[in-house]
Amino acid sequence: MGILDKISKPSDIKDLSIKELEELASELRTFLLENVSKTGGHLASNLGIVELTLALFKNYDFAKDKIVFDVGHQSYVYKILTGRKDNFDTLRTKDGISGFPKREESSYDYFDTGHSSNSISVALGMARARDLKKEDYEVVSIIGDGAFTGGMVYEALNDLGYKNSKMLIILNDNGMSISSNVGGLTNTLNKFRLTKSYNNLKRKAHLNKNNPMIKIGRKVKNSIKNLFFKPMFFESLGVRYIGPVDGHNIKELNDVIKKIKKLNEPVVLHIVTTKGQGYLPAMEHPEKFHAVGKFDLVTGDSLGSKNKTYSKVFGEALLDLAKKDERIVAITAAMIDGTGLNEFAKIYPNRLFDVGITEGHAVTLAAGMATSGFKPIFAVYSTFLQRGFDQIIIDVCMQNLPVIFAVDRAGLVGNDGKTHQGVFDLSYLLMIPNIQILAPKCLEDLPKILEYAININEPVAIRYPRGGDILKIKSINKITIGKWEMVSNGEKLVILATGKMVQYAILAKNKLENKYNPLIVNAVFIKPLDNTFLDKIIKEGYNVLTIEDNVKIGGFGEYVNSILIQKGFKKKIKIMGYEDHFIDHASVDELLDLENLGVDAIINEIKKLY
Amino acid sequence: MGILDKISKPSDIKDLSIKELEELASELRTFLLENVSKTGGHLASNLGIVELTLALFKNYDFAKDKIVFDVGHQSYVYKILTGRKDNFDTLRTKDGISGFPKREESSYDYFDTGHSSNSISVALGMARARDLKKEDYEVVSIIGDGAFTGGMVYEALNDLGYKNSKMLIILNDNGMSISSNVGGLTNTLNKFRLTKSYNNLKRKAHLNKNNPMIKIGRKVKNSIKNLFFKPMFFESLGVRYIGPVDGHNIKELNDVIKKIKKLNEPVVLHIVTTKGQGYLPAMEHPEKFHAVGKFDLVTGDSLGSKNKTYSKVFGEALLDLAKKDERIVAITAAMIDGTGLNEFAKIYPNRLFDVGITEGHAVTLAAGMATSGFKPIFAVYSTFLQRGFDQIIIDVCMQNLPVIFAVDRAGLVGNDGKTHQGVFDLSYLLMIPNIQILAPKCLEDLPKILEYAININEPVAIRYPRGGDILKIKSINKITIGKWEMVSNGEKLVILATGKMVQYAILAKNKLENKYNPLIVNAVFIKPLDNTFLDKIIKEGYNVLTIEDNVKIGGFGEYVNSILIQKGFKKKIKIMGYEDHFIDHASVDELLDLENLGVDAIINEIKKLY
Repeated sequence: MGILDKISKPSDIKDLSIKELEELASELRTFLLENVSKTGGHLASNLGIVELTLALFKNYDFAKDKIVFDVGHQSYVYKILTGRKDNFDTLRTKDGISGFPKREESSYDYFDTGHSSNSISVALGMARARDLKKEDYEVVSIIGDGAFTGGMVYEALNDLGYKNSKMLIILNDNGMSISSNVGGLTNTLNKFRLTKSYNNLKRKAHLNKNNPMIKIGRKVKNSIKNLFFKPMFFESLGVRYIGPVDGHNIKELNDVIKKIKKLNEPVVLHIVTTKGQGYLPAMEHPEKFHAVGKFDLVTGDSLGSKNKTYSKVFGEALLDLAKKDERIVAITAAMIDGTGLNEFAKIYPNRLFDVGITEGHAVTLAAGMATSGFKPIFAVYSTFLQRGFDQIIIDVCMQNLPVIFAVDRAGLVGNDGKTHQGVFDLSYLLMIPNIQILAPKCLEDLPKILEYAININEPVAIRYPRGGDILKIKSINKITIGKWEMVSNGEKLVILATGKMVQYAILAKNKLENKYNPLIVNAVFIKPLDNTFLDKIIKEGYNVLTIEDNVKIGGFGEYVNSILIQKGFKKKIKIMGYEDHFIDHASVDELLDLENLGVDAIINEIKKLY
Repeated sequence: MGILDKISKPSDIKDLSIKELEELASELRTFLLENVSKTGGHLASNLGIVELTLALFKNYDFAKDKIVFDVGHQSYVYKILTGRKDNFDTLRTKDGISGFPKREESSYDYFDTGHSSNSISVALGMARARDLKKEDYEVVSIIGDGAFTGGMVYEALNDLGYKNSKMLIILNDNGMSISSNVGGLTNTLNKFRLTKSYNNLKRKAHLNKNNPMIKIGRKVKNSIKNLFFKPMFFESLGVRYIGPVDGHNIKELNDVIKKIKKLNEPVVLHIVTTKGQGYLPAMEHPEKFHAVGKFDLVTGDSLGSKNKTYSKVFGEALLDLAKKDERIVAITAAMIDGTGLNEFAKIYPNRLFDVGITEGHAVTLAAGMATSGFKPIFAVYSTFLQRGFDQIIIDVCMQNLPVIFAVDRAGLVGNDGKTHQGVFDLSYLLMIPNIQILAPKCLEDLPKILEYAININEPVAIRYPRGGDILKIKSINKITIGKWEMVSNGEKLVILATGKMVQYAILAKNKLENKYNPLIVNAVFIKPLDNTFLDKIIKEGYNVLTIEDNVKIGGFGEYVNSILIQKGFKKKIKIMGYEDHFIDHASVDELLDLENLGVDAIINEIKKLY
């Protein structure tokens, strides 16, 4: 029986010696690897934060002290040690534990996170609340160097430096966010990385590369002194800086945190860690192991499906178009890999701008380039584009600039859960004047839509889902503004489906008896609508069923409904989409059923409308 | 005939001597004062930027060199000198020139601005476009120290410092944004302000305080050397810093800009100016003269109406509630004055957090405080809340935290135009789960709604318009969740109006013959809807007219329509709201008529529905 099995509550950790903590770190890595290789999840960053998490438990009492994980994907060790070890094998599955902190899940989770760069704002709110109420607890936030590129960090540090509140900000610097990290501040951090002491840290961290399950923490022998200095960036904002400290050396971490606790002021502690620490495949390919599906523990190879994804098709299509059109430039907010831009980045490094986790800046940078003759494509996940909402309105659409938004992970994303579902973009984009919104019904439609978008001199959003297709169907012939595609003939009922929901509609129709013969339409344009077809619906007296992978409120169906009614529509209409609630983690198929948007639910609605 | 009258094109300025430029600066101030005192507009910041604008024209050719004004309210001098002098008396009026840069208005305007902190992103986009195309022009952005608190500035500087592009960023430091400026970086700037040379600048700037129309520029005799150094903040981000320079000394500005043009790298030039420079009332009360209506040129007194505004009523009500409830804290993004929080700030300085122009941080800070037992109220203009959109969804509503959004300037704002109309908030808030949205139909309803919001333990948005009421009506009795208020009895037609549109509906009904007798309902809850009443509408067979001060797409009317149809509604429904376009500057009344939302338009629709 190892140490991990003996930990029944977080306070047990306080009694462990440094040596025992090092042993526990090793056990935790094994536990993480064995579990995440089966469930999938965020692996590399959790392997990197084991020692830090233990050093924090050694010094804080998180029954009362508050901790905020930026993004929150690195909270697995914390979860394991706060009563969630025994159901850790349910990670990210339906009714299982979330891949991110969640207040509903444990009283040890103080804030639900998932989006980047907000942890200092949250922690400052908690610290100010404490000071106003004259209460007594500590506040800690942990933020990676990737999340540190987001503007909220600066806004919060600036506010914090102005009206000091005691809190600890741990800058967990592993030299990369999801893509390799960018930005001038990164260059400054890189200068530290060139110093001898920093290099020592890194060298030690790589000592035992040959063993895929090394116990790195306790192998570090020659500890260096903590470096206390105040780099100019933090000092100029009025916040004290301490570091860098070896983030895999529990003793050093413990010593420095003990000292910091005594300081009555805000402190940034800069620690240096290795993403994937202790697992060779992850150390060598941290990007691949940032978020993984199931994988083979020995080889590190993915056990997931190798199906073609929309992201990959997008990346290939953009690259093809870029070869012929020099006006095309790509912008990504630290998501080269996730959005399928790897090849583009290799072939056109000067035409790809990875701007860090800065969606607001990314949108406006695109607008600036668009005023100067370029066709910028901002490839971004639906949920993260929310951070650039105002900039889409004011900087792009108000001026009708030809910026293209490649909105990846639109609709349900599944296991990442509430913070990552891309179920709002149709609503928040539809309300903006001047923008066209399109969705491919299948992989093969995407390159055609992209080409259309590049040649229309206006703002365009193209939304497409995570993963690939469930059905092989015929690709669209031609994209004409505001013109929908007839996918199947039929009578009495028109199904207006957007994007991949067309595939579900076809599956539903195929399963129905012949007496149900709905006409299926691919509403490839979500905006502008196909007014000619809407007129035809009214003239020929069809009932209407709309299906979208988005919340109903403010979405495609409501928009169609409203326009139809104003045109004098008198027949029945039913809107299928998500209800007015946040959607938890589970597989996409499970969620579609739960949300009444799967094939069976569509069949039901078709029958009701006949 | 003065020098100003002789300037027929911007390049004429290049031929002027420093002495002539100083004379021109004085003439421009007189011109500004005489015009803006009649039209209203942003005065103080334009008085502060006269010399800088002239020094830029002396060194750049803005027929090809590009300039981006952050926010853009300080672009009047630039407009006057680029062919818009003769119709400057139409400033901010219908079909007249805009109070902000506008590409449609002049080829000298390179980007339409209005929201803060985006100018470096835009300029970087232009500079990168130039470099990729190997073109030859300069890019200049001008940004105030207030706008410098916004996170986009950091995102853009970080990106710029990483991949250098030649451009000039002018930090126009007048020691205040709209409210007095906040943040740790401000403290750093304040340290410069304590140095001797900086104080010399300020002293010189105030030399001739006694004359309300002084010609300060040319009074400065003992010019100081330009200080070349690199403060740590900019250096840590990899961008060269030069300054501070006296922003009212044309010779010094000219010298330093000439030198900077020769540097082939990004440079931040820090200049020091006085808001309101040259006009004593504005120098003494720059906050009052930030944005003014018509005023008396001699006394500086406002000539506008003194009517009670929603902002003022909100501020008073919040203060009253705060006296009884210690959980109440107020948050503002540099808008203490505009949102009516002046008194609150004086009485409870520890419970008011002015966080700078950082709407994203403000929302999340509120969320952090809400997790810790507080009731934070974020008072913010509708159009600027767009910057905190993602944070409202993820940090507040996903966790159902009791944060209150006091959404001021909702609906049309009038003369500030496109970038400032608050016509999207109903759409972007309605789609978010868990939030309640309310609107007072009159000033007296606002305190009651605010009290309701504070006592409901959930996210609430309260939206109310700029200005005050047009009609005195009876205040609501009681706020009950999801319950609408019957304002007048009637038959056949139900008018569902939100907020102040109820007043317009009443005016319309009053003007109609007796045979038109619509039932008028105050839809005080925009979310959740009054389902009991919707059922009654269906049961009793009313036609429905919805009226809202918001775009139609995704707004109240579409939401009502969608719910009614799903409930089996068969009668007629008409949605009144704004069409799918951006709305230009003009008075609110003019715009309401143009947009078919005034009293006459309502009368028309009522008649059609009978």
